Amino acid sequence: MEQIGIGMLGYAFMGKAHSNAFKKIAYMTWPPPYEPRLVGIAGRDLRAVGEAAERYGYEYATGDWRDLVADERIALFDNGGPNSLHAEPTIAAAEAGKHVVCEKPLGRDADESYEIWRRVAATGVQHLCAFNYRFVPAVRLAREMIDAGELGEIRHFRGRYLQDWGDDPSLDTWRFHPDEAGSGALGDLGTHVVDLARFLAGEFATVSGFAKTFVKGRTVDDSVEAAVEFASGAVGTVEATRLALGRRNSFQWEINGSKASLAFDMERLNELQVFRDDGDRARGFKTVLVSEADHPYWQHWWPPGHIIGWGETFVHELHHMLRAIAGEVEVAPYGATFEDGYRAAEICDAIVRSGETGRREQLAFRTL
Amino acid sequence: MEQIGIGMLGYAFMGKAHSNAFKKIAYMTWPPPYEPRLVGIAGRDLRAVGEAAERYGYEYATGDWRDLVADERIALFDNGGPNSLHAEPTIAAAEAGKHVVCEKPLGRDADESYEIWRRVAATGVQHLCAFNYRFVPAVRLAREMIDAGELGEIRHFRGRYLQDWGDDPSLDTWRFHPDEAGSGALGDLGTHVVDLARFLAGEFATVSGFAKTFVKGRTVDDSVEAAVEFASGAVGTVEATRLALGRRNSFQWEINGSKASLAFDMERLNELQVFRDDGDRARGFKTVLVSEADHPYWQHWWPPGHIIGWGETFVHELHHMLRAIAGEVEVAPYGATFEDGYRAAEICDAIVRSGETGRREQLAFRTL
Amino acid sequence: MEQIGIGMLGYAFMGKAHSNAFKKIAYMTWPPPYEPRLVGIAGRDLRAVGEAAERYGYEYATGDWRDLVADERIALFDNGGPNSLHAEPTIAAAEAGKHVVCEKPLGRDADESYEIWRRVAATGVQHLCAFNYRFVPAVRLAREMIDAGELGEIRHFRGRYLQDWGDDPSLDTWRFHPDEAGSGALGDLGTHVVDLARFLAGEFATVSGFAKTFVKGRTVDDSVEAAVEFASGAVGTVEATRLALGRRNSFQWEINGSKASLAFDMERLNELQVFRDDGDRARGFKTVLVSEADHPYWQHWWPPGHIIGWGETFVHELHHMLRAIAGEVEVAPYGATFEDGYRAAEICDAIVRSGETGRREQLAFRTL
Amino acid sequence: MEQIGIGMLGYAFMGKAHSNAFKKIAYMTWPPPYEPRLVGIAGRDLRAVGEAAERYGYEYATGDWRDLVADERIALFDNGGPNSLHAEPTIAAAEAGKHVVCEKPLGRDADESYEIWRRVAATGVQHLCAFNYRFVPAVRLAREMIDAGELGEIRHFRGRYLQDWGDDPSLDTWRFHPDEAGSGALGDLGTHVVDLARFLAGEFATVSGFAKTFVKGRTVDDSVEAAVEFASGAVGTVEATRLALGRRNSFQWEINGSKASLAFDMERLNELQVFRDDGDRARGFKTVLVSEADHPYWQHWWPPGHIIGWGETFVHELHHMLRAIAGEVEVAPYGATFEDGYRAAEICDAIVRSGETGRREQLAFRTL
Repeated sequence: MEQIGIGMLGYAFMGKAHSNAFKKIAYMTWPPPYEPRLVGIAGRDLRAVGEAAERYGYEYATGDWRDLVADERIALFDNGGPNSLHAEPTIAAAEAGKHVVCEKPLGRDADESYEIWRRVAATGVQHLCAFNYRFVPAVRLAREMIDAGELGEIRHFRGRYLQDWGDDPSLDTWRFHPDEAGSGALGDLGTHVVDLARFLAGEFATVSGFAKTFVKGRTVDDSVEAAVEFASGAVGTVEATRLALGRRNSFQWEINGSKASLAFDMERLNELQVFRDDGDRARGFKTVLVSEADHPYWQHWWPPGHIIGWGETFVHELHHMLRAIAGEVEVAPYGATFEDGYRAAEICDAIVRSGETGRREQLAFRTL
Repeated sequence: MEQIGIGMLGYAFMGKAHSNAFKKIAYMTWPPPYEPRLVGIAGRDLRAVGEAAERYGYEYATGDWRDLVADERIALFDNGGPNSLHAEPTIAAAEAGKHVVCEKPLGRDADESYEIWRRVAATGVQHLCAFNYRFVPAVRLAREMIDAGELGEIRHFRGRYLQDWGDDPSLDTWRFHPDEAGSGALGDLGTHVVDLARFLAGEFATVSGFAKTFVKGRTVDDSVEAAVEFASGAVGTVEATRLALGRRNSFQWEINGSKASLAFDMERLNELQVFRDDGDRARGFKTVLVSEADHPYWQHWWPPGHIIGWGETFVHELHHMLRAIAGEVEVAPYGATFEDGYRAAEICDAIVRSGETGRREQLAFRTL
Repeated sequence: MEQIGIGMLGYAFMGKAHSNAFKKIAYMTWPPPYEPRLVGIAGRDLRAVGEAAERYGYEYATGDWRDLVADERIALFDNGGPNSLHAEPTIAAAEAGKHVVCEKPLGRDADESYEIWRRVAATGVQHLCAFNYRFVPAVRLAREMIDAGELGEIRHFRGRYLQDWGDDPSLDTWRFHPDEAGSGALGDLGTHVVDLARFLAGEFATVSGFAKTFVKGRTVDDSVEAAVEFASGAVGTVEATRLALGRRNSFQWEINGSKASLAFDMERLNELQVFRDDGDRARGFKTVLVSEADHPYWQHWWPPGHIIGWGETFVHELHHMLRAIAGEVEVAPYGATFEDGYRAAEICDAIVRSGETGRREQLAFRTL
Repeated sequence: MEQIGIGMLGYAFMGKAHSNAFKKIAYMTWPPPYEPRLVGIAGRDLRAVGEAAERYGYEYATGDWRDLVADERIALFDNGGPNSLHAEPTIAAAEAGKHVVCEKPLGRDADESYEIWRRVAATGVQHLCAFNYRFVPAVRLAREMIDAGELGEIRHFRGRYLQDWGDDPSLDTWRFHPDEAGSGALGDLGTHVVDLARFLAGEFATVSGFAKTFVKGRTVDDSVEAAVEFASGAVGTVEATRLALGRRNSFQWEINGSKASLAFDMERLNELQVFRDDGDRARGFKTVLVSEADHPYWQHWWPPGHIIGWGETFVHELHHMLRAIAGEVEVAPYGATFEDGYRAAEICDAIVRSGETGRREQLAFRTL
């Protein structure tokens, strides 16, 4: 089986999630497009990155991501580092001819995101912005239903990503440093809402809202609220917060169309709520356990009803990327490209701008 | 037992709901503050109002609400007519010395609502704007928990009232005539969201949003979306629509505080979701069946777990009004006064204005 | 409108529920088959029964139910007294030519129940055993789906009625006295399970199980467990307990057929879970809010989604009885007759007998 | 890191689940007790087992499990073959000095299960019967709460394992051959219910029930129903079926104690329902997302709320077995030993026997 050399930047949360995915692709997706070869892993803490290399089976660890970029055995550069380390390494890797995966948000703002997209697109490599929730089977099923016209005209998208770990003033990871993270809940959670809104309901037209910081002394936002319009005429809301007590990873969305409605909660990621206006006297939302043989991504897993976890979204995502590299599929539309990463950033910036100006912001997207 | 004479304007949906409530107050709340005497009922369709009188036991029916205003046996005038019939009869009744209940929205806009409030308040009678959802036991329990400080600082209120009966261009009740209704989903459903937001999270400071009409040829709104800020610093969203397929009467709201969160759905109106940050290793939202002997309004009903219905909210509401008339309680804060009705209208107008101007609208409330 | 005179035995829990129903029938079911006239109410505690008469509007109160039997104005005798007072007054009323409603369980055991049925049937009056849960709209909808063949062959019925108020050794109502109640959870809750099992899955063939008492000093059962077979070949379980902490009134049942499954919980009595094996890729249980215009009993109530409460089941039940008296319908099959009451008792006795003998008990039902 | 050689019998459903687990143990549990070395895999279909070896990385494939038994590099023999292949290979492997894991049910009946236990125990190796649901974090959390006395006296256990794939007469895997499977839903699903009942509520005392076959021509059972008593005095039900339409993998159980209740559904395996009788006015079941840093097995995974899947239960289980081999823990009580496997078989046999004799069956367990 042909191998593909992987270079990983980041060894913590995302490093673990992506490394696990590459290892599982090798045998859970069978036969895989390539057998991932874990060549090198980079990170700032040499002791930690060394342990990660041993743990996940990378052939070497390095404190300098440039070593990965220079390594000719590496064909896919996967950037799971902090947001401030997205632009330079990703661009460098692409310019060195490597395919690139970059965690979301693509850049710390629209300008940086655009620059990453522009520079990488110019190289002709495959690029994927790791909005992994597109690869939840229930989310992909929703998209397929929409594409097949099963929802009719879409009128509403309401999405909210609720977590509750942010209410501690002493928290001090890179996620709370504006220079490293770019923003707070907005870039971390809000971008996911924006991306799935685009994935399911189409492009944004306007946003009216704001970001807000509650925790004293914090310099990134805790919460984001917006009323939004889509290019199609659909309307809705986008929310994100790290201060919704009791919600651990509750990314909820609902779509109302003229023929059907769909609803979802990431805390029950194997389930899709489906309402069809089919004239049945017994009308109501179905709780669909998305785990059937003919459901998206399910060919890799278990018999129906034997649910999968959050970690599996990365298996689907990186498997998709390997297939794209192998020429079997395009990254878009089921995966997010760097253009999608840039557009999400443009929309997030517009929400912040709306908060500052007090005005409804019209979206205008740059092209290459 | 002392009686109180009731005059009812309206015999259809609200007429039925209020009449049922008056009849049940007589024996389900025991002893009641007064025994309601159903004196007269008014409506435009003489045949229908005549049948309603026979059905509910009113002593007479009339095609002219002025007959009720002129009837000295009537001490409480209850206005369940279309929105365009709220102002004149309600003011006339109050000026004739009758206590008044008026269905929501109080007026068709803030100006009319203010005028109703101003004129009625000047008479010194008791006035209640029938935001009946304040009288859902779970909602009142939520309020009591908030008043007791159990939620700590409130950070988020997100409310949405979703129905799905509006997607039929041939619908032609008064609810779709701007002159009779004032607005569409906004006045019908959005006011409920605004009122409970005020009831639970406090006064509004700003709104950024818009109303939207989807159904061709319709001249009132189908949907309303807004990002909002409260005077307390809390933030959130307000939504209402009659186009959310599969949602029949789903008024959902969630409040996140620094110590607890609450969530609710009117389709399961006996349940309150409660999360407390209490250090229990087994952390999660409780599904509280609000039906205990020590729960609000429950002294009137059944053993725990024997749930009540939507109709009972009117029993609680009008019982509260009778108690206010009897001097046992104030209408506020557990009931909505006409000032509350006016303020809800001011906020709804601001959402419409925000849609038109493209600006965040600051709330400013008139006083008497 | 023609009136029907009502005589009520019992003024507490069931007296309140039935009285409320008679009063609502007069205007919520329109036009009603008869206008209920509340003639007399009987009970042992003269002060309490006097207050009940005033509260609910009975023309007189009496300490002796024989006064009701002797009252020619009374055409319907409704027995909501303790189980030990079911036989004699009910038989006497029927033999005096009155139609009779009797709360469940019909008698304290199969023999007494049979005797009530036999004696009452001989008089030719209408008789209804008040298994009110047949009159939950969702339960009736389930029955209609089954009758229409929508479930195919029924394989499983599993029912359990869970409450939690019984874990207090100091409780000392008539429900804990074997002579007055006959049994504990079995007659109180288990009969409901048995009745709905018969209503939905058909007649019982065998039971294998037992009753059990946990609370020290108590002489009636706290819990009942049985594995059961139906005449159709379906199998399942029957359970009832007053010791299921956290379950307040959770009567849950599920039916699996060869074409569809249904599930229900009384704590969410407006909802029916419906699974159809219809080939839809989006397969799953629907949460049906049973509140549509074409749903059972819903013509009496509100727009869709505006849910009803437990108390309304009695409105449906007694309305059905009045219609039967008026000759519009038969009591059976949608209502339970005294034969149904007797058969439920026979099955409950068989569970106790199975517990004592350690054997599977075959059901054999007496006929008239 | 020290390695442990693994020999796997079976390459299909369980072969995939166990192989995946061994591969993930190597890096998700860090540091692992041993690094699993996948030495050999055996199966009847040489082409399929060869592909499995390539897929999962076994060093060789063989058509004869005796090759694994003879292989000195193998220290742990993992038997995921059909039930008829549990006894001989497992005993042989143990007698060759290898630690053994055997899928459930241990044997095809109590006699065979006892023989496996007796022969293996005599060798002194570590043995684990793969009741993987003990290793669901929510199930283990339940056990820890029970062990800590948080439930008080246990009164009820009701468990049912519902699937719906069995309603096809043409199905013809080994699971439908009595000689290979021993039984149908009983051994496949019922044993899981029995094992978790024992794990959570303690040892069985009696069973009253039966097995039942619905599908024409089938010679194993489709469904099992039993009313049960535990040695502690607790009572409940045990059910299993492959004919519950709409239930894909719904292993539901509920435990009621004198101080708390717990409930669970495998289709939402990350959630535990917890009711505590703690005097809170807001009383109700908590939906606990079992994914906190201090929850069982969670040290291996992700931040709170990022749920895991069914496959992870095997990671926990086999990791536990490796720890037992390393001397860090005992297999019991958190894992099931072959004694547990035998006892579950004894109880299942008793249910069948009860069905045949029509009698309540007392449990008596053999010892070594």
